Amino acid sequence: MHLKTRLTEKLGITHPILLAPMGVMAGGKLAAAVSEAGGLGIIGGGYGDADWLEAQFAAAGTSRVGCGFITWSMARDPKLLDQVLAKRPAVLMLSFGELEPHASHIKKQRVPLICQVQGMKYLREAVDAGADIIVTEGCEAGGHSGYRGLFTFVPEAADYLAKHSPDTVLVAAGGVGDGRGLAAALLLGADGVLIGTRFVASKESEAPDGFRDAIIRADGDATMKSNSVDVVRKRYWPNPEFVIRVLKNRFVSKWHGREREIEKVIDVEHERFWNAFKAGDAEDSGVLMGEVSGIIKDAPPAAKIIDDMVAQACQLLGSSTRHVVR
Amino acid sequence: MHLKTRLTEKLGITHPILLAPMGVMAGGKLAAAVSEAGGLGIIGGGYGDADWLEAQFAAAGTSRVGCGFITWSMARDPKLLDQVLAKRPAVLMLSFGELEPHASHIKKQRVPLICQVQGMKYLREAVDAGADIIVTEGCEAGGHSGYRGLFTFVPEAADYLAKHSPDTVLVAAGGVGDGRGLAAALLLGADGVLIGTRFVASKESEAPDGFRDAIIRADGDATMKSNSVDVVRKRYWPNPEFVIRVLKNRFVSKWHGREREIEKVIDVEHERFWNAFKAGDAEDSGVLMGEVSGIIKDAPPAAKIIDDMVAQACQLLGSSTRHVVR
Repeated sequence: MHLKTRLTEKLGITHPILLAPMGVMAGGKLAAAVSEAGGLGIIGGGYGDADWLEAQFAAAGTSRVGCGFITWSMARDPKLLDQVLAKRPAVLMLSFGELEPHASHIKKQRVPLICQVQGMKYLREAVDAGADIIVTEGCEAGGHSGYRGLFTFVPEAADYLAKHSPDTVLVAAGGVGDGRGLAAALLLGADGVLIGTRFVASKESEAPDGFRDAIIRADGDATMKSNSVDVVRKRYWPNPEFVIRVLKNRFVSKWHGREREIEKVIDVEHERFWNAFKAGDAEDSGVLMGEVSGIIKDAPPAAKIIDDMVAQACQLLGSSTRHVVR
Repeated sequence: MHLKTRLTEKLGITHPILLAPMGVMAGGKLAAAVSEAGGLGIIGGGYGDADWLEAQFAAAGTSRVGCGFITWSMARDPKLLDQVLAKRPAVLMLSFGELEPHASHIKKQRVPLICQVQGMKYLREAVDAGADIIVTEGCEAGGHSGYRGLFTFVPEAADYLAKHSPDTVLVAAGGVGDGRGLAAALLLGADGVLIGTRFVASKESEAPDGFRDAIIRADGDATMKSNSVDVVRKRYWPNPEFVIRVLKNRFVSKWHGREREIEKVIDVEHERFWNAFKAGDAEDSGVLMGEVSGIIKDAPPAAKIIDDMVAQACQLLGSSTRHVVR
């Protein structure tokens, strides 16, 4: 059994599952693994680093993968976008920031445009920009997100698209970790899902072992939104609506709400933080993870994650529903 | 078609739909309407008011209804609990606060105990207290809630209960407004749903017309969590984890983040607020509503809300799934 949706049709993929383009974690190896397993891997362009991007596309080899950017950061150095477009990515995904002129540029190159949105306001902008696929991101997500819960956001977005842009494909993100989440997302009105945290806890992610273990250990109460991690990383986000969700670890417990005090020791803390991060120290750095960590208990190969997710969703949806193909 | 779940079996009801016991809004008339339509109405005992409770049970007439309390507030005057238990309610629901000694007291009276929880920590406490039914409330909910999104909370709670307390029935709350939400909640692992905002926008709720209209007009981005409404009402919640979600109206836009300044004019503002509230002024008072407002476009009788919700859920779930009875 597998699932056939407007997303699988649109992208020519087997399963309606996209890899979230998570900076650092979603490299070429993981993206390729997701694509080879029938989903679509999207390399995490993140804040934008030309050398890293080059290395990750090389690591993806001949696998068909896409790439995603943090829009406002990429906009400071738009040649990164051209660098990626020259590789004819399967999709180009933009999150967080002004869509133009990048959206038009991407569409002119005939690369499918995915826009990730965090509220109805951003959804309307993405429709106006001509997004082929819109990802509604719930605030349960790991990393940056807005203020909307996924459970209400998906059906509201589906209603809006049905009325104003019926050909736009809808994808749910932030909180999906197994077949229950995939099946529920489809019933709420999505055509597929975009998965972050569950793929960080996979064999092929770039996460150090300490981070994988932290996701496996955490229950869903163990995360919180805290600007402390952005401040220590000197990642100054222009829109305060978007706050990062991380493990409530020793670093966050110490500094959350005391962001101005971090500034006073920023040189020391910045270096210490990144050293801890590189060492896979899940307590004294920042571990981006969503509330879905609470149902993640292992870190198997990405292909097994996808196979199990699809099988469970098919079982739940039952053989008679329109999504299920035998 | 209708839906048969562990919740319908447990409570002997036709549809797996409970009315959220919303203070003020969920009176006897609405509770009776929900029960008569095949769900279960739960009167909103709220902070506790003996005369109001008496009037609402009278308004419910011979309909079988339950009652819910804000636990920490009821605990200041526990004879309110005895007043309600003497009426042999269909269920007694506790939210927000120490469960004991009330949970044991309720169970001794052989009244089914529902505990609403806002995170895994509270879920574990509810299991330990012997709750018959546990409601996982997402932070999308109108009124007070915690920090967990519904989409991740339900499957994590289901996994915990399957392992530690398999006979406990699980209900999803906060974000359910139509058959998509009901169907999705069931696939995520719940046995039913508890509905607030969608029933505020019903013919039988105690909401003034101005509040109903505000819910219908609002999109899902239009709400926010703000302590300002609790401060002006002099509702001093002991646990800062629980923050109220309301319409981002003129009052909230003016006072959010300036709660200490409200204190300086509290006598004037308190009276002005309640007068506006009673007049149904949705801009200068506080309108409790969830993000699900974004998919609510009318205020029909509760029976129509339930019928439409069940029909849509059955259609989505398909005839072959275990939840659907033809």
